[in-house]
Amino acid sequence: MAQAEFVFEETVRIYDTDTQGIAHYASYYRFFTNAIEKYMQEKVGIKYPIVNDDLWFVIVESHAVYKRPLRLGDRISVVLSPKAISKKIIRFDMNIFKNGEKTTEGYVVQASINPKTWKAIELPDELIARITTI
Amino acid sequence: MAQAEFVFEETVRIYDTDTQGIAHYASYYRFFTNAIEKYMQEKVGIKYPIVNDDLWFVIVESHAVYKRPLRLGDRISVVLSPKAISKKIIRFDMNIFKNGEKTTEGYVVQASINPKTWKAIELPDELIARITTI
Amino acid sequence: MAQAEFVFEETVRIYDTDTQGIAHYASYYRFFTNAIEKYMQEKVGIKYPIVNDDLWFVIVESHAVYKRPLRLGDRISVVLSPKAISKKIIRFDMNIFKNGEKTTEGYVVQASINPKTWKAIELPDELIARITTI
Amino acid sequence: MAQAEFVFEETVRIYDTDTQGIAHYASYYRFFTNAIEKYMQEKVGIKYPIVNDDLWFVIVESHAVYKRPLRLGDRISVVLSPKAISKKIIRFDMNIFKNGEKTTEGYVVQASINPKTWKAIELPDELIARITTI
Repeated sequence: MAQAEFVFEETVRIYDTDTQGIAHYASYYRFFTNAIEKYMQEKVGIKYPIVNDDLWFVIVESHAVYKRPLRLGDRISVVLSPKAISKKIIRFDMNIFKNGEKTTEGYVVQASINPKTWKAIELPDELIARITTI
Repeated sequence: MAQAEFVFEETVRIYDTDTQGIAHYASYYRFFTNAIEKYMQEKVGIKYPIVNDDLWFVIVESHAVYKRPLRLGDRISVVLSPKAISKKIIRFDMNIFKNGEKTTEGYVVQASINPKTWKAIELPDELIARITTI
Repeated sequence: MAQAEFVFEETVRIYDTDTQGIAHYASYYRFFTNAIEKYMQEKVGIKYPIVNDDLWFVIVESHAVYKRPLRLGDRISVVLSPKAISKKIIRFDMNIFKNGEKTTEGYVVQASINPKTWKAIELPDELIARITTI
Repeated sequence: MAQAEFVFEETVRIYDTDTQGIAHYASYYRFFTNAIEKYMQEKVGIKYPIVNDDLWFVIVESHAVYKRPLRLGDRISVVLSPKAISKKIIRFDMNIFKNGEKTTEGYVVQASINPKTWKAIELPDELIARITTI
């Protein structure tokens, strides 16, 4: 299954910025979260990160490298590329572009768990395929 | 029962500020929340806002008037004054001071509910007394 | 000039919620901010809240009454109604609806200032008309 | 110069949590930021991240691995260990412990810049020594 990309358009809001005049470094995880949530709902067709009573996604790792600052009102493209690390672990590579130039790269890794036991569980192959095939 | 005051010292953090160089208006509710939470734990001796499985506090109204801006690194005093509106409703009047000058005033109103039914419930008189007597 | 309304569609995100399973009370100000920002950009045609080097809008008062809780994934309509209090002060009445039922009401009041002096300034009549006529 | 550690005590607040009943993954960067800011002010004796008009610290990379969830009211120890990568780049290794057990590890990397040019600048050796010697 070829890995592909999903693009989410976003605007840097006043509450994303800080007194240095740039987007605060933790705000980028809001951009990442929005892109993943929209991808899961619109393309995969599941609720996120609470899929149902037996399946939740929880974040187990996050990473970002800030190459160029973003500022209030910037229109950005958040490009998401999903990959199954295992039947329990999905990684989303994330890249942010402004005017065609990459400003930020990172990733978010999530585990699938049963919230009743808080143990990692394997996703059905069919769901993995839907998540990783854009 | 005399109404009194509780003072909570706080610092304006980088993530409280925005690109206007001031604390973002919604950040003040973080200051209010911190003061109420600390008051409830240290003075009243209860967990907050989830007291136990049968008693939660939920916010039903919030208000703030911003008289003077706050900036990164400002050391502020958040002064809290509790008042029982009814056996189900507590109001916390909040005032923020910087260097002795009032910068902000507002209030937060909370209802006591049973989370299993999501219905308002009366607080025991003894607990109301503890919350409203500083 | 008749007062009218602007509707902004929004989704309650995971980071808007808290461990009580509902949208945190301060998150509603994110919804209000988004609606005002979108209104100012799309309908009024100005950048917001930093219009230019000589004109900023700063929030001087905020208020919300939470009638019914909002939860993860809720699709909401944020209805905005602007009103000029004076040539320096604009008030936005805000109402949030979910499935046609009002869940939240509140307002945000902003002053127009010159950021170089941090003094309130009068808006041109033409701009007031554009802001208050939807 | 031996690398050492600085410990910052923190509480997981209601606004750090989300509807999964755990601290939201981006909230950990608030914990990291608080620890670094407190370290810089109390131990190094400088304002942070805006040191003065000619020296700002900006975040260029962030990372976190979430081993165990944190929940409302958890008392945590945020352990910070600074390291100079170059004269322009400082890395803070971060570890969070709850009841003696490690729950989270990560790091934050910052560059020193001149905000007027937004170019990286070398820190004085004396300041690097103060930052990296606890």
